[in-house]
Amino acid sequence: MISQETIVALASPSGAGAIAVIRISGKNAIAIAEQVFQSISGKAISQQKTHTIHLGHIVDEGKVYDQVLLSIFKNPHSYTGEDVIEISCHGSTYIQQQIIQLLLRKGCKMAQAGEFTLRAFLNGKLDLSQAEAVADLISSDNEASHQIAMQQMRGGFSNEIAKLREELLNFASLIELELDFAEEDVEFADRTQFKELLNRIEFVLKRLIDSFAVGNVIKNGIPVAIVGEPNVGKSTLLNALLNEERAIVSDIAGTTRDTIEDELVIEGIGFRFIDTAGIRETKDLVESIGIKKTFEKIEQAQVVLLLVDGSRLSVESLTNVKIEIEKIRNQFPLKPIVIIINKKDLIAPEMLSTINNQLTTDNGQPTTIYISAKNKEGIDELKKQLLSFVNTGALRNNETIVTNTRHYDSLLKALEEIQKVRFGMDTNLSSDLMAIDIKQALYYFGEITGEVTNDELLGNIFANFCIGK
Amino acid sequence: MISQETIVALASPSGAGAIAVIRISGKNAIAIAEQVFQSISGKAISQQKTHTIHLGHIVDEGKVYDQVLLSIFKNPHSYTGEDVIEISCHGSTYIQQQIIQLLLRKGCKMAQAGEFTLRAFLNGKLDLSQAEAVADLISSDNEASHQIAMQQMRGGFSNEIAKLREELLNFASLIELELDFAEEDVEFADRTQFKELLNRIEFVLKRLIDSFAVGNVIKNGIPVAIVGEPNVGKSTLLNALLNEERAIVSDIAGTTRDTIEDELVIEGIGFRFIDTAGIRETKDLVESIGIKKTFEKIEQAQVVLLLVDGSRLSVESLTNVKIEIEKIRNQFPLKPIVIIINKKDLIAPEMLSTINNQLTTDNGQPTTIYISAKNKEGIDELKKQLLSFVNTGALRNNETIVTNTRHYDSLLKALEEIQKVRFGMDTNLSSDLMAIDIKQALYYFGEITGEVTNDELLGNIFANFCIGK
Repeated sequence: MISQETIVALASPSGAGAIAVIRISGKNAIAIAEQVFQSISGKAISQQKTHTIHLGHIVDEGKVYDQVLLSIFKNPHSYTGEDVIEISCHGSTYIQQQIIQLLLRKGCKMAQAGEFTLRAFLNGKLDLSQAEAVADLISSDNEASHQIAMQQMRGGFSNEIAKLREELLNFASLIELELDFAEEDVEFADRTQFKELLNRIEFVLKRLIDSFAVGNVIKNGIPVAIVGEPNVGKSTLLNALLNEERAIVSDIAGTTRDTIEDELVIEGIGFRFIDTAGIRETKDLVESIGIKKTFEKIEQAQVVLLLVDGSRLSVESLTNVKIEIEKIRNQFPLKPIVIIINKKDLIAPEMLSTINNQLTTDNGQPTTIYISAKNKEGIDELKKQLLSFVNTGALRNNETIVTNTRHYDSLLKALEEIQKVRFGMDTNLSSDLMAIDIKQALYYFGEITGEVTNDELLGNIFANFCIGK
Repeated sequence: MISQETIVALASPSGAGAIAVIRISGKNAIAIAEQVFQSISGKAISQQKTHTIHLGHIVDEGKVYDQVLLSIFKNPHSYTGEDVIEISCHGSTYIQQQIIQLLLRKGCKMAQAGEFTLRAFLNGKLDLSQAEAVADLISSDNEASHQIAMQQMRGGFSNEIAKLREELLNFASLIELELDFAEEDVEFADRTQFKELLNRIEFVLKRLIDSFAVGNVIKNGIPVAIVGEPNVGKSTLLNALLNEERAIVSDIAGTTRDTIEDELVIEGIGFRFIDTAGIRETKDLVESIGIKKTFEKIEQAQVVLLLVDGSRLSVESLTNVKIEIEKIRNQFPLKPIVIIINKKDLIAPEMLSTINNQLTTDNGQPTTIYISAKNKEGIDELKKQLLSFVNTGALRNNETIVTNTRHYDSLLKALEEIQKVRFGMDTNLSSDLMAIDIKQALYYFGEITGEVTNDELLGNIFANFCIGK
């Protein structure tokens, strides 16, 4: 599976900057680099130690391409486990291209997306879930997702799985052994211990599976639907929410205010705000299509913010609000709703107690928050409220959190097999049949860490990487 | 002038990529890095040799920020001449920011634009014209500008100036000596040799000054005005010109088809195509404003392409074309004009000889080229024609070319002073007056290489750099 080619790619972000880094990996990395690199010291790089840096020029056929720093990593002490050369050149895209093209002419192949990390995996430098965490780490754009990816890359997740897998493997071999002595009816595998192990495995698997809900949300941001008629102050609210964090948001590439969804990071957790058209009763066909779309968006959201214009609140309009809440409740009984009454300074005084009486039910649900988006009052309370919907307990306690759908699927399947094994034990299933279920569970464990792989699986995983990683 | 602070900045392009490089420079660079870096080997980085790379984690208060490679460059063996640390981290913008913010908390200051290179200059690692070439190199987007910047960065230009300056300085001190012995009327400075030196200096200065015309054009691209009525095929022509090179053009950041000017690189030389509204006679006020603008654009251009629709050519319209050429000639007698007859396959057969007779004058000017933009015929001929307007002789012969307006100004002023000195010699000017002119010439030479600078000048030069360089 592993290609024998020496590969090259730009490792730093594309575009111009002070410097750019070009990475070469493979058995000819040093030989190819040597062909085009003239060190200032005059020494050949093949004679240099690993993890050393050398100043020199990229030169070919008398043409000087650039003055560069060249770093040497000798196998196995490199990212990929192969010989790796990194060329730190001046950051013009023209120079980057010229040097990469020169290296291609000298025998390098252009690296596929994720090929460096794939090689790291195939050479045993990383297990599969760690390799996947590298991609997550690169795309992490808030503290929570970054923390989870770091933990996974450092092996937190796969260590846990690998340990359980090993224990299970022990038992599996003991049970296999029993099969060899089937006629003598001996039990090498202590059934009480084995049950205890199955309990532990089940407990861990369930915790990991449960963590996926929060992990997935943290990785992708928590979708929040904003429901409200035009002119109630939706964009002012979004701006008020975004304003303070603007510096952070705008610094992150790819998060632009032009997209339909606005993203905001509150205390390290990403929230995606989805604007909707509202759900007020209508006979207009176009509008009713809008309402249908609003409901679709509410379905995707984890939290619904119902925004109301306080300055226009009357007894009648309050009834409309109640009807709207009722409609959302009917369709999505468990979805948390926060009623936000905007322009709180303009609420008619006689309405204040009516609002409290009408909107708040016995159990205090839904929550009502009074704000002034324009004066930025009540925004902090709203942010706190939003954070309260996120179960960050696992995050705070530094527990392993699953964010990857592939892992989630394998965990679910593994759990199923483990439960089968347990059922087998409870019903005195014969050892040979039980061994099949155990093997299957081991298979799914192996899928996560990469002990069990196939080309298609690897292809899918690494296709999501950027080139150069 | 040189700040004692330790500075930090992102050195790789902004945005996400496989890796990013953060650069720290200053006397506390190693001490600060040591506070946040835990090497896998467990060894302290202050104990490590220069030009070595270390795998480890960025950690602060128990929080692991990233797994990184850390490179050490000890003064004076670094880009800036100070202690330099480069941290190669995972390329998420979130991680980049987190690490930079951590370093700022630990005592680094954010680097100003060009501050690393400014420090390199102030520490004598580069002279001023070499430092300026670094910025040119980073912004170079074609072979010619890249080659010139490389040459300048390697000192080609300043070496030449510095050598002449030294020789001139020698003579200056001999003449100063004569002043001390003024009463004895001795001549320490051999006047014949001195004249010979002045001749050589004048020759070099003139060559360098002349090279600025081509250098400036190569650096910024050659402006080409396309004059033609709507629907003659201007955008098809541009597309035909750009299409083959599309891959190159689109790979260069910042060159988008959305801008008013289209850029195209032909054999390493950049051309900027400026679309104009045409100059046909009109009584319409709005249109006459358009014509005024067209003339302004023609003024900026080095070459004018007059695009004509061959399918609509008649005896009358041919007369109009001749009038248009006349108008351009009247205002800009020396500007090369190329008449491009588009849709050549649709020219009425009886018009062919008329076109030849009418448009081509005795000296073969202006050049007429027949093309079909749609079928991409005649495009190569047009490209060759465009290249013929560029004097690439100096470039081909690897001569020093001046591209920097600041250098050009200093060279002009130096030439003026040298000519004054020569005039002084020819008119037997007293040595003390001549010494003043020589000193002034030396001053302007020094301005180029940076022996003579002031804060304002340096501020202006380095403000044009990107941050991180």
